[in-house]
Amino acid sequence: MKRCFFEIAYDGTNYHGWQIQPNAVSVQEVVEEALSTILREKTQIVASGRTDTGVHCEQQFFHADIPDSQNPAQLKTRLNSFLPADISIQTVRDVAPEAHARFDATRRAYRYQISTTKNPFRQGYYYFHLKPLNVQTMNAAAALLLGDQDFQAFSKVKTEVNHYHCEVFHAEWIESGSELTFQIEANRFLRGMVRAIVGTLLNVGKGKSSIEDVKAIIQSKDRRKAGAAAPPQGLFLTKVQYPDTIYK
Amino acid sequence: MKRCFFEIAYDGTNYHGWQIQPNAVSVQEVVEEALSTILREKTQIVASGRTDTGVHCEQQFFHADIPDSQNPAQLKTRLNSFLPADISIQTVRDVAPEAHARFDATRRAYRYQISTTKNPFRQGYYYFHLKPLNVQTMNAAAALLLGDQDFQAFSKVKTEVNHYHCEVFHAEWIESGSELTFQIEANRFLRGMVRAIVGTLLNVGKGKSSIEDVKAIIQSKDRRKAGAAAPPQGLFLTKVQYPDTIYK
Repeated sequence: MKRCFFEIAYDGTNYHGWQIQPNAVSVQEVVEEALSTILREKTQIVASGRTDTGVHCEQQFFHADIPDSQNPAQLKTRLNSFLPADISIQTVRDVAPEAHARFDATRRAYRYQISTTKNPFRQGYYYFHLKPLNVQTMNAAAALLLGDQDFQAFSKVKTEVNHYHCEVFHAEWIESGSELTFQIEANRFLRGMVRAIVGTLLNVGKGKSSIEDVKAIIQSKDRRKAGAAAPPQGLFLTKVQYPDTIYK
Repeated sequence: MKRCFFEIAYDGTNYHGWQIQPNAVSVQEVVEEALSTILREKTQIVASGRTDTGVHCEQQFFHADIPDSQNPAQLKTRLNSFLPADISIQTVRDVAPEAHARFDATRRAYRYQISTTKNPFRQGYYYFHLKPLNVQTMNAAAALLLGDQDFQAFSKVKTEVNHYHCEVFHAEWIESGSELTFQIEANRFLRGMVRAIVGTLLNVGKGKSSIEDVKAIIQSKDRRKAGAAAPPQGLFLTKVQYPDTIYK
């Protein structure tokens, strides 16, 4: 057996998130079934992280141990013809046997997309907010997120982490015509963190919260103080990074 | 009463085309109902042209006669809050009383989108063709369409036109990464014309037809000689032009 890294993209609309669960279709389940059918043996996969119900993914990685005889390029083609149109395998690469999709990931990036006008072609990939937002104050509040901090205020309460520290490298709103995009990059993210941050910053943009309020929210470590989670369809996991040393 | 021009965009996925018909939901029906409800009287609309089932529209115009008291900007806002997310009114403008959305249109443009790789985020707006296409020969064949010609070979047989002449100003394939786009502009289009042309040019790109074959197809004036209609979800009506003189 050898270990492979699989790069995957999916439209999350029709899935109850990444992670396998009873009575609901997940991306992990559909991919494990396809891989197990092709390899003719039950094969488990481990991803860099999970995404919630309805959240999209432009780039995520998972690893699996497969027979040495499998050619990565051929396996990619076979998986893609097997998988539905809303899930795509982008690359398959051999990695070192100890490489781990979750533990070895060093950076993750997300994008949140808001449409400020009605647009029939943005359904499913944008949150529509048709009232004015103050992008300047939203960016001032976003700057407070930078650095290594405790982000418990933006974490779902039911979670299994040891600590709530994340190092945020980048957090910025970019306005382009009727499109408002939030980009955030960190070493790790807590469950529901990006949508809670977006909800909180939207309150700033609407004038409901001040920059001082956001400072207090971060310091409170209390999820109830932060804004409501922004809707999932605007969120994309866009990038997961690994050190080059994992590749054989 | 005064006449107004309404600029409209829609995602055609859930509609049986533009034109009202029994036992199927059309864009025209949904818009007429919204306008009639807002104006509190049965109001009919006349579009620049129809689109087929599943075809999208980035820009089309229709006219309607409405009470003089109606403010165009306010009417646009009210219509948009009334209409579903997949239909959007872009502008409403007063026009001369004799202005006609269909008869006064001087140019129409369409775009057909093909994806040459599996991409979860292109569902609904692209035709997926994952095998190689020779874009150079497709463009050589597209050049044969230019000018004023009889396009009966690309027209649906059941149609009510007096003649099949169209003047094609522009017809070109543009390749960008894994996206292949056909742009065509003409004074008028016949029913099913763009999808029949795309199907015919795809046969050239696949090596099934030659440039000479396309010349013969045009000259035959026989729809059965042309290629099968390309699927509707890749097609967008993108632009309809009018002389400035129609605006008051």
